[in-house]
Amino acid sequence: MTELSHLDAEGRARMIDVGGKAVTRRVAVATGRLDTTAEVVALVVADGLKKADALATARIAGIQAAKRTSDLIPLAHLLPLESVTIEFEPGEASIGIRATVAVTAKTGVEMEALTAVAVAGLALHDMIKAVDPAAVLGDIRLVEKTGGKSGHWTPEP
Amino acid sequence: MTELSHLDAEGRARMIDVGGKAVTRRVAVATGRLDTTAEVVALVVADGLKKADALATARIAGIQAAKRTSDLIPLAHLLPLESVTIEFEPGEASIGIRATVAVTAKTGVEMEALTAVAVAGLALHDMIKAVDPAAVLGDIRLVEKTGGKSGHWTPEP
Amino acid sequence: MTELSHLDAEGRARMIDVGGKAVTRRVAVATGRLDTTAEVVALVVADGLKKADALATARIAGIQAAKRTSDLIPLAHLLPLESVTIEFEPGEASIGIRATVAVTAKTGVEMEALTAVAVAGLALHDMIKAVDPAAVLGDIRLVEKTGGKSGHWTPEP
Amino acid sequence: MTELSHLDAEGRARMIDVGGKAVTRRVAVATGRLDTTAEVVALVVADGLKKADALATARIAGIQAAKRTSDLIPLAHLLPLESVTIEFEPGEASIGIRATVAVTAKTGVEMEALTAVAVAGLALHDMIKAVDPAAVLGDIRLVEKTGGKSGHWTPEP
Amino acid sequence: MTELSHLDAEGRARMIDVGGKAVTRRVAVATGRLDTTAEVVALVVADGLKKADALATARIAGIQAAKRTSDLIPLAHLLPLESVTIEFEPGEASIGIRATVAVTAKTGVEMEALTAVAVAGLALHDMIKAVDPAAVLGDIRLVEKTGGKSGHWTPEP
Amino acid sequence: MTELSHLDAEGRARMIDVGGKAVTRRVAVATGRLDTTAEVVALVVADGLKKADALATARIAGIQAAKRTSDLIPLAHLLPLESVTIEFEPGEASIGIRATVAVTAKTGVEMEALTAVAVAGLALHDMIKAVDPAAVLGDIRLVEKTGGKSGHWTPEP
Repeated sequence: MTELSHLDAEGRARMIDVGGKAVTRRVAVATGRLDTTAEVVALVVADGLKKADALATARIAGIQAAKRTSDLIPLAHLLPLESVTIEFEPGEASIGIRATVAVTAKTGVEMEALTAVAVAGLALHDMIKAVDPAAVLGDIRLVEKTGGKSGHWTPEP
Repeated sequence: MTELSHLDAEGRARMIDVGGKAVTRRVAVATGRLDTTAEVVALVVADGLKKADALATARIAGIQAAKRTSDLIPLAHLLPLESVTIEFEPGEASIGIRATVAVTAKTGVEMEALTAVAVAGLALHDMIKAVDPAAVLGDIRLVEKTGGKSGHWTPEP
Repeated sequence: MTELSHLDAEGRARMIDVGGKAVTRRVAVATGRLDTTAEVVALVVADGLKKADALATARIAGIQAAKRTSDLIPLAHLLPLESVTIEFEPGEASIGIRATVAVTAKTGVEMEALTAVAVAGLALHDMIKAVDPAAVLGDIRLVEKTGGKSGHWTPEP
Repeated sequence: MTELSHLDAEGRARMIDVGGKAVTRRVAVATGRLDTTAEVVALVVADGLKKADALATARIAGIQAAKRTSDLIPLAHLLPLESVTIEFEPGEASIGIRATVAVTAKTGVEMEALTAVAVAGLALHDMIKAVDPAAVLGDIRLVEKTGGKSGHWTPEP
Repeated sequence: MTELSHLDAEGRARMIDVGGKAVTRRVAVATGRLDTTAEVVALVVADGLKKADALATARIAGIQAAKRTSDLIPLAHLLPLESVTIEFEPGEASIGIRATVAVTAKTGVEMEALTAVAVAGLALHDMIKAVDPAAVLGDIRLVEKTGGKSGHWTPEP
Repeated sequence: MTELSHLDAEGRARMIDVGGKAVTRRVAVATGRLDTTAEVVALVVADGLKKADALATARIAGIQAAKRTSDLIPLAHLLPLESVTIEFEPGEASIGIRATVAVTAKTGVEMEALTAVAVAGLALHDMIKAVDPAAVLGDIRLVEKTGGKSGHWTPEP
């Protein structure tokens, strides 16, 4: 197994040099899920009936967090993102979150997609915490990645 | 069931008025977990053997994210945090994350604790993503809350 | 006429000392207007029909900007805002913007209310600039202020 | 009339994909105006006589805001600005503001120029609000745009 | 000798709990110096003759940095600063920098004063680096501190 | 001697246009030093023995500050940094700091390297200020620069 690339030979953190990598279009997709109750899902998706701002607020939070990833994640590179989209899929007692981020750059946007999902989920949690403080945000994972040396990646089944 | 307090009667987002609430000491504890492989856990906790910066980097990311919660979560109030601690508990194929945040203010620090856990987890994910892109961040939840009108809270078992 | 309080006797900028001022509840209301065309207003307020995110996005931008006022305005003090609300009032060929901000602190929130209006207006402008690049944001002014030494203030008619 | 490009077919906000657009030099010019009184203009432009920092402070606020546009405007792209200049033109009872921003990128800098004008104006407002709380910031508009697919643009007379 | 208070018994970083400390008025003064050449000092202080923005720009940079200290220094607490002033004292071949910061809070503003001096110095360095890349920023130190448990402090002579 | 390039002919600050400069790989190295006591150095480098987070925390602070340089230094351009490394060299009664920053861009990263050194030094100062409030941060200077029109630069001996 290889070493952790963000640490040098002595184990010290560094922002690794991507100067020699190719500039290619890179896309990453991440997903996550907020587990709550059926009643709370109904309140949140009242978005559909009453035009409430719950999902819109979480969507904006996720998009903005994607843009601030290099400020939040200490060793991440600043990247001029070309596209960010966040989708929500309400389930029976949960709300699915999916972020797709694209860039043309020397390194990928996996962390940007994961950060967008996590912060959109936190913003939803904030919205519902008065009615369901026990909600759980989880299953935040990368589901697809294209571009760069490693090409197309999806998790092994 | 009550309505979502962050939305007004027409469903529009707002930063709710906490002006009338009591200034009390408030503490929140949140936890989460990064699921990866035993090999990756060994690389990360080499922190213990080789003094590597992996956990220290994630800890700083979490502490700083707690301080920036009101910037990340659109309807959260800015709070002058008095204390933030982040602990990691390596498991067999996972790393547990626990954040404790305290403030003396008119509103609580649940979101600050949850945000600290999520961002510390994202920073760990960033560190290991080259060796385990399939790692999963999850189970982010509030486990304890004290102070304010609702007093002491823990999730129902 | 008095001097500009943000400059010292030699004309140098400073963040003036508010240490001796009283902690009171302070509220400020500011308004502004984006002038565009009737067609664009119809697209934006389709928010009402199609639940589009246009106004929700601008509202979040304004709320977040209020919280970042001290970061944007060099000599402004950081204040722990207690409440921020943004309202939009679509007109025939314009969209009215109104922000109300409250705090309990040693100095007022006029700049926070004005900043919220300006940035909500800029976010609307961003949304419509592809269809109306000639839109004009203006009439940004303080319309009410309470709390502090000067008490209740409204502009002279 | 076209739809709002920042919203998808369902009306949801997104950061639109600029990945396929051409990298060209793009320049935008925006203007605005702070209306106040002749006495206040005299205090501010004492900048010329007494070397006061009023206009310099507002200029820096505007330049920095241009750089932070993607952080303020939720759906704006982060752009590596190549040039930002802010000019003030004192009038009889008003101060004109003009920002010119340039970049070599896949999308334009209209929002950066407009944001620079708005925040420079807010910073001026902050400086004078103790002596003229009724000052009005307005007439913030794009006056010229070059580069990109649409080429040279100025408002219709 | 005592231990480093920012590290726990196991040596892990934390934001220490200031919840039990007294709210008092606290002031800190820090100084520093940019060493350059007599010619460069003349260019910079042309501020006096030609109303140039060099010192004004550095002053604003220092004031804003003081407000962002908790964002820059990982374990620093966010404090609602009440006053920040930056003074420059041009010498023969150097420019002296002095920052005074005040707050009424549970912990002091030493880091805010030091950060203001450092960033004002960096901003000056930026301004002159094309003409004197060998300039040296240094001698950044605390020179006075009042308030809190330790009372009045000045360095031993 | 030339003029200060960040000021226009009238002495007004501006972000100078780098649009016409060549995109090349540019590297800058800066150094600095925190002077304290032998006892404090022992506490800090206990990092080697007890795996304490002192140096790791300062390293992360420096890396993150490099990424935020354009936000801290008013007239600096935003650059997509490709690499940042921070090294500490403990001396008898001091800790040496060295930052190396690289980018492929139209302008150099001198300010990013200097800012990384300054903020890493401030973070160390924060860590030790309870035991040595008289510590001095200084000797912050550029020691090497490559890329761009001026090619390789080192200070004259």
